[in-house]
Amino acid sequence: MSQIPANNPALKSWVEVPSNSDFPIQNLPFGVVKSENLPPHVASRIGNKVIDLKTLHVLGYLENLPFELSDFDTDSLNPMMKKGKKAVRDLRNRLSKLFDSNQPDLQKNEQHVVQVLIPVENVKMCMPVQIGDYTDFYSSREHATNVGMMFRDPANALLPNWLWLPVGYHGRSSSIIISGEPVTRPKGQIKPNPEEPPIFAACRNLDFELETAFITFDGKPLGESISTAEAEDFIFGMVLLNDWSARDIQTWEYVPLGPFLAKNFASSISPWIVTLDALQPFKVDGPKQEPEVLSYLKYEGQLSYDIQLEVFIEPENGEETKICTSNFKYMYWNMAQQLAHHTVNGCNIRCGDLLGSGTISGPTPDSYGSMLELSWKGTKPLKMNDGTERKFIQDGDNVIMRGFSLKDGVRIGFGEVSGKILPAKN
Amino acid sequence: MSQIPANNPALKSWVEVPSNSDFPIQNLPFGVVKSENLPPHVASRIGNKVIDLKTLHVLGYLENLPFELSDFDTDSLNPMMKKGKKAVRDLRNRLSKLFDSNQPDLQKNEQHVVQVLIPVENVKMCMPVQIGDYTDFYSSREHATNVGMMFRDPANALLPNWLWLPVGYHGRSSSIIISGEPVTRPKGQIKPNPEEPPIFAACRNLDFELETAFITFDGKPLGESISTAEAEDFIFGMVLLNDWSARDIQTWEYVPLGPFLAKNFASSISPWIVTLDALQPFKVDGPKQEPEVLSYLKYEGQLSYDIQLEVFIEPENGEETKICTSNFKYMYWNMAQQLAHHTVNGCNIRCGDLLGSGTISGPTPDSYGSMLELSWKGTKPLKMNDGTERKFIQDGDNVIMRGFSLKDGVRIGFGEVSGKILPAKN
Repeated sequence: MSQIPANNPALKSWVEVPSNSDFPIQNLPFGVVKSENLPPHVASRIGNKVIDLKTLHVLGYLENLPFELSDFDTDSLNPMMKKGKKAVRDLRNRLSKLFDSNQPDLQKNEQHVVQVLIPVENVKMCMPVQIGDYTDFYSSREHATNVGMMFRDPANALLPNWLWLPVGYHGRSSSIIISGEPVTRPKGQIKPNPEEPPIFAACRNLDFELETAFITFDGKPLGESISTAEAEDFIFGMVLLNDWSARDIQTWEYVPLGPFLAKNFASSISPWIVTLDALQPFKVDGPKQEPEVLSYLKYEGQLSYDIQLEVFIEPENGEETKICTSNFKYMYWNMAQQLAHHTVNGCNIRCGDLLGSGTISGPTPDSYGSMLELSWKGTKPLKMNDGTERKFIQDGDNVIMRGFSLKDGVRIGFGEVSGKILPAKN
Repeated sequence: MSQIPANNPALKSWVEVPSNSDFPIQNLPFGVVKSENLPPHVASRIGNKVIDLKTLHVLGYLENLPFELSDFDTDSLNPMMKKGKKAVRDLRNRLSKLFDSNQPDLQKNEQHVVQVLIPVENVKMCMPVQIGDYTDFYSSREHATNVGMMFRDPANALLPNWLWLPVGYHGRSSSIIISGEPVTRPKGQIKPNPEEPPIFAACRNLDFELETAFITFDGKPLGESISTAEAEDFIFGMVLLNDWSARDIQTWEYVPLGPFLAKNFASSISPWIVTLDALQPFKVDGPKQEPEVLSYLKYEGQLSYDIQLEVFIEPENGEETKICTSNFKYMYWNMAQQLAHHTVNGCNIRCGDLLGSGTISGPTPDSYGSMLELSWKGTKPLKMNDGTERKFIQDGDNVIMRGFSLKDGVRIGFGEVSGKILPAKN
């Protein structure tokens, strides 16, 4: 039987996939898992089962693909990603075929199935990528406008360069952590009283930032640029990103060189990297860009993605309250434009770089992607289901972000990125 | 014969060291070299000879030290550095003993000497470290004041936070290159006419920044801080850093999140890492800090270093002109304060992180560490020895920075960091 395209809604797997699962056969994301008996290795996922790629390779199911066992028997996706876009696409297509209900090869070999599929509850997710450089953009017009209104001139909220280029800055790689790892409330210099000198104290205005991020393949050599037309060939996949922010530290430190300690204490990512290939069906038009962008930022076709996003706060011993519903499609600058801009000066990207979208705020107050905006700088506290209120994030709060795309009955999800706040250290 | 301390001025080597060499036996820096016959491996240097540490290990001269052959038979210093401060200090002390003129072991074994010592002209220097995160500070009061006077309010040149904390920001690791590699003039958005929209063009105001940088050992886990008293235990050594800057791109892009494409097209470092141990004799008092700093930034003893710095421009087919003489001791914030500040929020550092000082400008106009300041924004062109003038760096110019410390007849130098500017690509 010939192969059905990997994104085809008609494709069904012989592995049971619960309705509403983020991981149907059309997804097949990549990650790194470990278990009691096994050191970290590369995996994919279908329904509630982890697909052990190392074992698949050992059993010969990945024949005629340009991968070696060592590409999967390792603690990061980088060796696999080093093989490039076509190789990884072929690998996903192979997985799609192996798990297609019309394909008997693996399906009928019960002994192999038991070895290859691991219940998700039996593994622990690991940091999937050894991240080289981390860049964060600022590409939501609504977010930039909200911040500008609160901290600068409400009449000129958007700074002069904002509509001309995707503003971005470099972040910290060392403190990127995986979903589920707790975050210690940072300490630092804050200036609660404008008339008084700064003090050293625990952050009082701790915030999340709802973002997505994309992860790159190896790019071009230093000195060369990637065009908007080429950009998606260099993008491996996407994750959810919570770019934790200490607003009071940020306010005092950020002029003139940008945020530093306000951000670099932690950034959390979701563990499964959803390939850009799996997201192709969810492409949509981006917002109209006015003024017309400079030629290196022009693009053809649809390069925005319809990805629904939600943020929840789960207080200690409490239940989740949904506090935000946004969508990645609201972004003014798309990923191809971000990558073209990032490399237009010759800056090189490497396999495993992480590029964050910036906070994804939508047009309505319930779609803002940070507490700063949702509570409007603390002036409009949010009501939790347990009756408490939040201006910013409290100790013990678990912040959970979820994201998924939905079309023609197919749901491609990211799972979640969560992180619980621990009290500041003495 | 018992061992003379590695920094003792009386120490002499049996290897000939030219007078005025940057690399007497008191230096013994670390780097990575390769040659026609040999893949990259770890080395030290004395006079005009490279010390092949891989061969020293094979021949048994590094016995009873916690290193394996693979720590030296590799293309970066990271495995060696992973062994920590004490191990690297013991290694330098061992080298000091082996090359001491009073120690016969290696000296008297001509066959071994020929294998271990390679003329510098026979090797090519490689990037010494696999850099994790790159942070750049902004710690020269004179530089920050000059920039503030030119671009902001001359009456309030120093921003309110500057005297309270060592302002810093994250830079780009992927585009850090080694001395001698050329730099392509970047293109980007600039706004030559304030009344007109931005244009896309080659940078017109290309600049260097005279900096030093330090490289770290593994730090503490995420969430913990390093105190000023502990900081130097986490510092491996120092290099010269030219943090190339596109001033016109910077002016347009940097608000509100800091410099991005104006910096990340290239940063050049010198190839030999001079250990902090070798620099101990050159410690001096730092500038008085007023207002008194917050407690986590207080320190005891001398934590500034007297390192003389020079910048030269060598036009295409022309001779060098010295354009700047500065000193690392002018920095307002020392490295221990920078590291304490960087980690006070729990941010973790890793083996191989690079932390730049920021432009090192001194108090006099000939000690300013950038063309921006030396030519005062282009209003005071510099005269070259060949009769031409410079407001900023021209295509074909080779920018060379040199640095050394001098005391009691001992000169501990860094060699140089150089980079020639190639024309922008079409």
